[in-house]
Parts: sequence; C-alpha cells; structure tokens
Amino acid sequence: MKDKLFISVIGASKCSAKEARIAEEVGRELAKRGAIVICGGLTGVMEAVCRGAKSEGGLTVGILPSNNRRDANPYVDIPIITGIGYARNSIVAKSGQAAIAIGGKYGTLSEIAYALQDKIPVIGLGTWKLATSKSKDESIIIANNASDAVDKAIQSIKQGVKNGFN
Amino acid sequence: MKDKLFISVIGASKCSAKEARIAEEVGRELAKRGAIVICGGLTGVMEAVCRGAKSEGGLTVGILPSNNRRDANPYVDIPIITGIGYARNSIVAKSGQAAIAIGGKYGTLSEIAYALQDKIPVIGLGTWKLATSKSKDESIIIANNASDAVDKAIQSIKQGVKNGFN
Amino acid sequence: MKDKLFISVIGASKCSAKEARIAEEVGRELAKRGAIVICGGLTGVMEAVCRGAKSEGGLTVGILPSNNRRDANPYVDIPIITGIGYARNSIVAKSGQAAIAIGGKYGTLSEIAYALQDKIPVIGLGTWKLATSKSKDESIIIANNASDAVDKAIQSIKQGVKNGFN
Amino acid sequence: MKDKLFISVIGASKCSAKEARIAEEVGRELAKRGAIVICGGLTGVMEAVCRGAKSEGGLTVGILPSNNRRDANPYVDIPIITGIGYARNSIVAKSGQAAIAIGGKYGTLSEIAYALQDKIPVIGLGTWKLATSKSKDESIIIANNASDAVDKAIQSIKQGVKNGFN
Repeated sequence: MKDKLFISVIGASKCSAKEARIAEEVGRELAKRGAIVICGGLTGVMEAVCRGAKSEGGLTVGILPSNNRRDANPYVDIPIITGIGYARNSIVAKSGQAAIAIGGKYGTLSEIAYALQDKIPVIGLGTWKLATSKSKDESIIIANNASDAVDKAIQSIKQGVKNGFN
Repeated sequence: MKDKLFISVIGASKCSAKEARIAEEVGRELAKRGAIVICGGLTGVMEAVCRGAKSEGGLTVGILPSNNRRDANPYVDIPIITGIGYARNSIVAKSGQAAIAIGGKYGTLSEIAYALQDKIPVIGLGTWKLATSKSKDESIIIANNASDAVDKAIQSIKQGVKNGFN
Repeated sequence: MKDKLFISVIGASKCSAKEARIAEEVGRELAKRGAIVICGGLTGVMEAVCRGAKSEGGLTVGILPSNNRRDANPYVDIPIITGIGYARNSIVAKSGQAAIAIGGKYGTLSEIAYALQDKIPVIGLGTWKLATSKSKDESIIIANNASDAVDKAIQSIKQGVKNGFN
Repeated sequence: MKDKLFISVIGASKCSAKEARIAEEVGRELAKRGAIVICGGLTGVMEAVCRGAKSEGGLTVGILPSNNRRDANPYVDIPIITGIGYARNSIVAKSGQAAIAIGGKYGTLSEIAYALQDKIPVIGLGTWKLATSKSKDESIIIANNASDAVDKAIQSIKQGVKNGFN
C-alpha cells in the first residue's frame, strides 16, 4: 500500500442533509481514486464519507476520541482507539497528506488549524473562512464540489511531495 | 488558592514588539487582580505575559510541548512537561476559565477553537476573526486594550460560573 | 472488515535477533488468521511483526510518535501520525483487542500497564514479570512461542467479547 | 520559584488507610522542604499527598484526566485540565524531577514506566516490583518510609542535575 494516498475528511458529527450528501460523494471519489479515508470515526460528516468510500470498495480509518471501539460508525474499517478525547483532532489532521473540510464547527476549526500549522493542504467545501484582524487568510483552498475537492486534494499532495513536504 | 481565577493567555512564539507590550500589560493586569496565568510556556507572547505577571508578583504556569523543562521561558513558575507536542494546545485552552488571545498564528487558532468548543470564553486582542461560508461567527469577544481584555475575561468567567460553566 | 480482529504487538525499537524472529513469526501467524496488526510503527519488534504480517498478505497499522510518516517502517500499511511522542503508547495499547508483548523495555511496560488497566488481555513472550510488594501479579498470560501467543490472544478476545469487554 | 523542586507523587485513586497516611506524610515532608507536589489531582493517594502538603503550606498541582476542574480534590492549588484521560499519566510522570510511587495499580505502573523511560528517578513505597523474564530490574529506589522517600527523591534530583538530567 506504499503508494496509497491518505486523505483526512473533517466535519461535524451533526451535519445537514446537504453536507452528508457532499461527504458521501467525497468518500466515493476518494475510493475510486484509491485514496484511503482518514476521519474522526463518528457520525455526521464522518459517517457519510465512510459510507461513500465503502460503497466504492475503499478503505476507511476512524480515529476515535473515546475508549470504545463501538463508537465507530458502521463504515469504519480500522478504528483507532485514542482515549484522548478531542485532543485526537490533531491526529486526524496530521494523519492525512491533505484534508478536505466539509462544513464543520469548532472541532473542525481545530483540525483545520492543526493541518495548516503542519503545512498540510486544506481543501474547503462550505467550511470556515479565516481572517486575522489585519487581513484575510487564504490558506484554505476553496473547492466547488466534491469531485473538485478530491482533485484539488490529490493535486496539492503531489505538489507537496515535489516540494519535500508530507 | 480555591478562589483564584485561572486565565489562559494564548499567542505565537514569535510576535511583534507591539504584541509583546500588550501581552506584558495583560500579564501585569492579571497579576494585579490575583488571576493565575496559564500559557504555553515558550517565547513571544507567552514569555511577555509571564514577564508582566511576575513583575506584579503573579503566578505563572507554562504547559510545554516538549520533554524538556529548560524550554520554559524564565518567567514560568510551574512548568508542565507534556511531551505531546502541539497537541498540548488543547490543554492550554482547557486549563483556563477564560482565554485571552493576542495576535497569533495557526497554533493560537487551534487554542481558540478548543476553548470555544468547551464554551470557555475567548477575548481577542488583534487576533483571528472567524466566519463560516454562511455567516460571521461572533463568539470571540473583542477587547480594546489589555486592561479591557482582562476586565472582559474576569466578567465572562463570573457570568459563566453563574450559568454553571467552568 | 467488521469481523476482523485487531491485535497489538508491542516491544522495543531495538531488539535481539531472537526477539525479531519471534515477532516476525507472530506477524505471520496473525496474518494467516486474518487479524490486523496494530503496533508503534517503528523499528525492532515493530518492524519484524509488520514484515511477518506482510509476508502472509496481512494488514498493518503503525501508530507513530512523531510528526513524520517517513518514520514508519517499510511494512506499515496505515501510518497514524500522532505527534504526541511516547504518550502514543496508550493508543497502541487501546487500539488492540488483545496485546502480545515481546521482550521490551520501559515503553513496552507502559503499554502493558495501559492494556491491563483497560482489561485488554496481554500475552507475554519473554517480557516483563509484574509483582507488587505484596504479591505476584498474574495478569500477563504467558505464552510458550509465537503460535501459542496468537492462539491465546485470539482465545482471550473471544472470551472477552462474551463477557462484554472490547 | 526558579529553584523549587518539582516532585511527582503517584498512586491509586482508591488506597488503603495506611497508604493514605504515608502519602499525607510524604506531602508534609515535601512541603517542609519547599518542593512542589505534582500529582494526578484525584482522590486516594493523590488527595492524601495534597492534604499533607497544604497542611504545611506547600503548593500542589493536579493534572486531571477529565475536562472538569471540579474533579480536582479540595487540596489541589493548580488544576491542569488535560481532557486526555489516562494518557495524562505520562504528563504526571514527566512533570516531576523525581517520582515517589505509593502502592498503586496499573495506572501507577504506567507512570513508573514513563518516568524510568525518561531517566526520571522513581522512589518506591510499597509499590510495584519490576523484573523481566531474564532478571530483576532494580531501577526503582526502595524507600523505608515517607521521610526516607523524600530524602531519596531530593538526593536523586541533585545527583541527576549534576549529571545533566532533568
């Protein structure tokens, strides 16, 4: 599996029907292109992306906050039982070579922050918009739809690898 | 020390001279009002706030990312040696009853996110401005200056305690 | 992959040739029986068990302490990038439904302790012997060889599942 | 507080009356000699050592597993809110320049392991006895009573500082 790509998909455990549809399509697209899905393993966006990936025969990793593997959604292949609560967000961010953020609340914001701090590219689908008191931050790469997000994630990893990142 | 307030001060390890002046004043104000400073223990905003607090006889806690207590700045009284890298940001956020964010980069953004996720009030001085793709997020309480930030932090804790938080 | 077993294999990053041979055989036996290997992802026992598992077409997960996926040994399929240093030992322990300990130093001891604390069965091959000042602790299940260790790990999980653990 | 010593006291949240008496005496002795107590912040040995330290005017730090500062025992001055569960054991171990282990179960064993891995001296009072399948491990320094444990902890730190540790 040496040449596989690992892509984190981040978003809230409660999400709108539209966000779930987008997440599911992201999961299908990732699986079709052979990328392995990393996520937080719970419900909402996390469950939708795993369901999508499994529908196309993909592989899914769920990095759980709790001590209980039964907290994983039914589409997680590999549950990682951290027991460290939401401090696990940094592991979700770091374990992908790129991150796709779909919607999301403060947990997702922490994952975006950790990814950007580590120079891991973040692709956004209706997610946070960052700015400081001085200027807009343009680090999040905006995508137009699920397929575009996956394209941009894969492209950003390939460029990053060239630059010696990841 | 049961009645002491614990306030996190968050910001980058490299900061402008202006941010350092503000952080130092925040430290002095916190010490004058008897609040204990929680921070990440390193340089920049963290060192400035600790220096300010010590100049007024305050007490400072530095929650270090590394395994080495010598990484603490010289104004840290109580170094906590986490060894968990920047995953320690969630501990810095959680260990305060309120957080004052001064400037800051992605590490500070992760701390803001963790604080807000836990309903810990965040007071901002020239820091991140949050918005989603749908609307502005107004959770960060904007302060005008160091003294105002400390006022707002203490006030927000007292209101939070009334509401059963913290 | 719902019915897969997840078994942690723990041991030091520097090990004897004999320990490496045992670890490699444990890896082969786990793969033959369809169990997924969880380990710390580095060298020594961790590399040997992954090499064994891959030689039989198994799947391997390496939970790395660092921020760098390149620290994974060449036989890790799924690297998890924790960035939390050796605090990741608790995640290695918790992510298995049973643990097989081969030799090992203090890191392995911490993993044994975390597993036993969570009532995860630990099978020992030439590893730590525990006792308190009052009595021997007989929680570690002693195995005679690699194949026996894997038998006992799988058996202990099946009993545990009956008892409502894991 | 630059010249203060930081000493971790580790032990279970449920302990015998005898262990609690010993822990309380350890706390008193540490405070008399100006050392700051680091512990896990909960009940049992942790509460007893904090109570002892406070009775002599000492300072106590409680590194809590939960998200809730109210989980700290009433004798904790500085609660650190980790939210990372028992993975916080490594932080308790690392934050002391020496550790005194009193009785204890598997959580204490994990703290002993982490301390020894980092070459932090561990002083034992009726705690775990370590051995491998090949030989006894004599890393834990056995103490005869509370006062002897504190003597040995302080002495070991002073020797360690000379050797460049801590």
